[in-house]
Amino acid sequence: MFRTAELQHKLPKEDYHQQALQLREELLMTQMELRNAPFPVIVVFAGVDGAGKSETVNKLHEWLDSRWLVTRAFGDPSDEERDRPEYWRFWRELPARGRMGLLLSSWYSTPILDRVFNRVDLAQFDERLERIKTFEKTLADDGALILKFWMHLSKDAQKERLRKLEKNPLLHWRVSRRDWQHWEMYDLFIAAAERTIMKTSTGLAPWKIVEGYDERYRSIVVATAIRDAIRFRLDEAKTPLASSNGDAHAPKPVPETGGLPPVTILSRLDMSKALDKDAYDTELKRYQAKLNQLQRAAREKAVSTILVFEGWDAAGKGGSIRRITAALDARDYQVIQIAAPTDEEAAHNYLWRFWRHLPRAGRVTIYDRSWYGRVLVERIEGFARTREWQRAYAEINDFEAQLAERGIVLLKFWLHITQEEQLRRFQEREQISYKAWKLTDEDWRNRERWADYELAVNDLVERTSTRQAPWTLVAANDKRHARIEVLRTLCERLEAALATEPKPKSK
Amino acid sequence: MFRTAELQHKLPKEDYHQQALQLREELLMTQMELRNAPFPVIVVFAGVDGAGKSETVNKLHEWLDSRWLVTRAFGDPSDEERDRPEYWRFWRELPARGRMGLLLSSWYSTPILDRVFNRVDLAQFDERLERIKTFEKTLADDGALILKFWMHLSKDAQKERLRKLEKNPLLHWRVSRRDWQHWEMYDLFIAAAERTIMKTSTGLAPWKIVEGYDERYRSIVVATAIRDAIRFRLDEAKTPLASSNGDAHAPKPVPETGGLPPVTILSRLDMSKALDKDAYDTELKRYQAKLNQLQRAAREKAVSTILVFEGWDAAGKGGSIRRITAALDARDYQVIQIAAPTDEEAAHNYLWRFWRHLPRAGRVTIYDRSWYGRVLVERIEGFARTREWQRAYAEINDFEAQLAERGIVLLKFWLHITQEEQLRRFQEREQISYKAWKLTDEDWRNRERWADYELAVNDLVERTSTRQAPWTLVAANDKRHARIEVLRTLCERLEAALATEPKPKSK
Repeated sequence: MFRTAELQHKLPKEDYHQQALQLREELLMTQMELRNAPFPVIVVFAGVDGAGKSETVNKLHEWLDSRWLVTRAFGDPSDEERDRPEYWRFWRELPARGRMGLLLSSWYSTPILDRVFNRVDLAQFDERLERIKTFEKTLADDGALILKFWMHLSKDAQKERLRKLEKNPLLHWRVSRRDWQHWEMYDLFIAAAERTIMKTSTGLAPWKIVEGYDERYRSIVVATAIRDAIRFRLDEAKTPLASSNGDAHAPKPVPETGGLPPVTILSRLDMSKALDKDAYDTELKRYQAKLNQLQRAAREKAVSTILVFEGWDAAGKGGSIRRITAALDARDYQVIQIAAPTDEEAAHNYLWRFWRHLPRAGRVTIYDRSWYGRVLVERIEGFARTREWQRAYAEINDFEAQLAERGIVLLKFWLHITQEEQLRRFQEREQISYKAWKLTDEDWRNRERWADYELAVNDLVERTSTRQAPWTLVAANDKRHARIEVLRTLCERLEAALATEPKPKSK
Repeated sequence: MFRTAELQHKLPKEDYHQQALQLREELLMTQMELRNAPFPVIVVFAGVDGAGKSETVNKLHEWLDSRWLVTRAFGDPSDEERDRPEYWRFWRELPARGRMGLLLSSWYSTPILDRVFNRVDLAQFDERLERIKTFEKTLADDGALILKFWMHLSKDAQKERLRKLEKNPLLHWRVSRRDWQHWEMYDLFIAAAERTIMKTSTGLAPWKIVEGYDERYRSIVVATAIRDAIRFRLDEAKTPLASSNGDAHAPKPVPETGGLPPVTILSRLDMSKALDKDAYDTELKRYQAKLNQLQRAAREKAVSTILVFEGWDAAGKGGSIRRITAALDARDYQVIQIAAPTDEEAAHNYLWRFWRHLPRAGRVTIYDRSWYGRVLVERIEGFARTREWQRAYAEINDFEAQLAERGIVLLKFWLHITQEEQLRRFQEREQISYKAWKLTDEDWRNRERWADYELAVNDLVERTSTRQAPWTLVAANDKRHARIEVLRTLCERLEAALATEPKPKSK
């Protein structure tokens, strides 16, 4: 795989200066145009030590306008990072649309080194490469331009390079014992690298192998590839054909069901369930006390909890959330209301705003509406394209799998009420002054699309109710029943999670 | 001071329920209105253990809509927090305009406990209270509504409360050895509290002492105070008199100087300084090598560096920055270009966006334009009101003092060119295609206000060139001279900083 990158490619000085001058001009023009483009550019650098990864990044900083560049190197994770799923640190540093991010020691670093040092077996290694592929696909599908450069040196060339550095009084510091240690493991490293490149070189995020032997050569090769890729993408966006690429932005009708009321999973819920006030008061007290104890234990064990609340307007999400928070210490939880994204959020992949609020170890985040908006309101109102919401199921499952792997307890509630009950509650809200503001025109509009939502919910449950992250459908015509059901489910899940595994403490 | 809060105020159950019902309604209405208001509400809770701080916060969550509430409790700082000045963690959690933040164990917590445990003497304690006052003033001046509740219990009442909690099988966990240890120190605690309240109760951020003996009483008192304060502020904003409060939003002419060219500090710079190419090449190499070594040592010692670049358009900020970054490892630095704020940034105090980018220990952040925009472009274009930019000098000095206290090396450069040189460079930019995009209409407009800027720069140097954070005025008509001057200054400052103090490692 690396044969062509061991030819000791060189670029004569004059050629270099001539090419560099023009390249720099074009890079700057491209970068300027990129600033208004609707996609980010993510450039990943990996490869052999001494092959010029950081030198190339520095060179790009020299040639490009570093004000619109974000360079990130991922060293040891901070405790805030360790508290969360592995990819949180990558999500938080992703460049926004119109920006370029140069990433060193990125998501490839740990998997490859873990493999080289035999900390994972081949199957585990492959799993992590799969995770990478899924991650990159999520970004690329959303429009991110992903470029990956593998900077290569032959074993001899690496040795020569390290020796040369050691002799240079200004640069000898760059060679550490660890570099020599890595050099000793060159063959293992290359084996892991080959597998990595084979498995993760996709059409959406291809690897380019660059020989790192000659600084001039590698700089021109990398910079040219970046220029061309961005140029191509920018031009593509300009052609009318490409802009209709996939489908239009208009609302999609949800397939008709031939006039018959569809039998959805929601229609099977027993909506008659109710709880009288006395029973409710007793149960409420009981479960709140229990939840309080469980959450303290969870805090102790650094087990985080994420609650997702979805449901019809006026289904009682807020009320249920309040019954939970009332049992928790204000120090431990946070309620995130998902409304229109901020412009920083809108400049990233739709999952970014959810990643950013993931709780630290031992805490609780409650999402009042969530990433499921992608396959609910965005699907139904046409805010997301068909292919966007359709692939969202897989993206969401992967996201949730990462939460589960980190030991986070994830609960997802759909609060279901009947159309009649919703009408009754809307009317009630209109009459109670301090509730009136909760009722908007949008609520009435959403109501008209009840059947569409019901189908969308059906799909959502079908595709995202996994063993690790099952949906709990709650019959919520009776608020008391619904609240207890939610509390009870939460307590059971927490109890089970705390019983089964001795959680790895974050620190 | 606390006598009136030891009267065992109680509220009968019926009165409570009646009042709570109406209060809740009004709180919700107020909160809804607040969402569109141009100010945040910051509610600080402090006081005696067992006096119901977190219970009150929970109650507020019950009564208010918790989706628009942010509750934060500050426990042990994370390593990302420890890496930065003490107040970074508070800045990052401040609520945005239109939101309400409830803060537990806030900026009062550590100073008071440090005093109680005699870790600081009275003078140091007072200094920290001063810091708090300045901080709160910065927020309040910008419109933040700050409410501070001191929840009090007499020594006996606290004892009784702790005993009662211990006897309750559901709540006994809330009483720790530390609580009793604190109880033993009640008198010391009250002494520190009194001093704190005396010194930090300002018109802009007053303390309200609340007796915490009776849950019903304290809940109603706190919630009523919050409702009234927000209500008052909202109504105030509606009266036409208040909106002209201070001065209008129009551009302010900079005072005339009677036709004579003002003698500003910039006019004293020797603009003839220049460096020939050979000398430049030698010096550049020398200082870049030196900087590289120094930064590695700084990284080692966890000493962070912040560079601020201000100067005329086309003065060569970008070029100087590139000569610095070329000497650094891409892992270590970040260039922050200050342009229009994002909407999340605009929803906070203007300093918030600078706080958010402060470097971790051992790293470098380079601000290409900075917080000085407040007293430059915002002053001259009238984006900031007169009182806003006038008080900014003090706010900036305080901000920079906090950086210096944390051991951060702060350098501030003003790159100065003459009007003639600027014209020459503008014309050159128009002709070189890959530089043309750097020239905007705004640059030409700014040029017309040269005299205003010159006066503003004079003021800025006069008021913000402190011993810890001096301005370096650089004669930049000759780019080579300017770049070396910048590099040399940076090297000298870093060298001095590394020589003098054995830095406290962040971890």
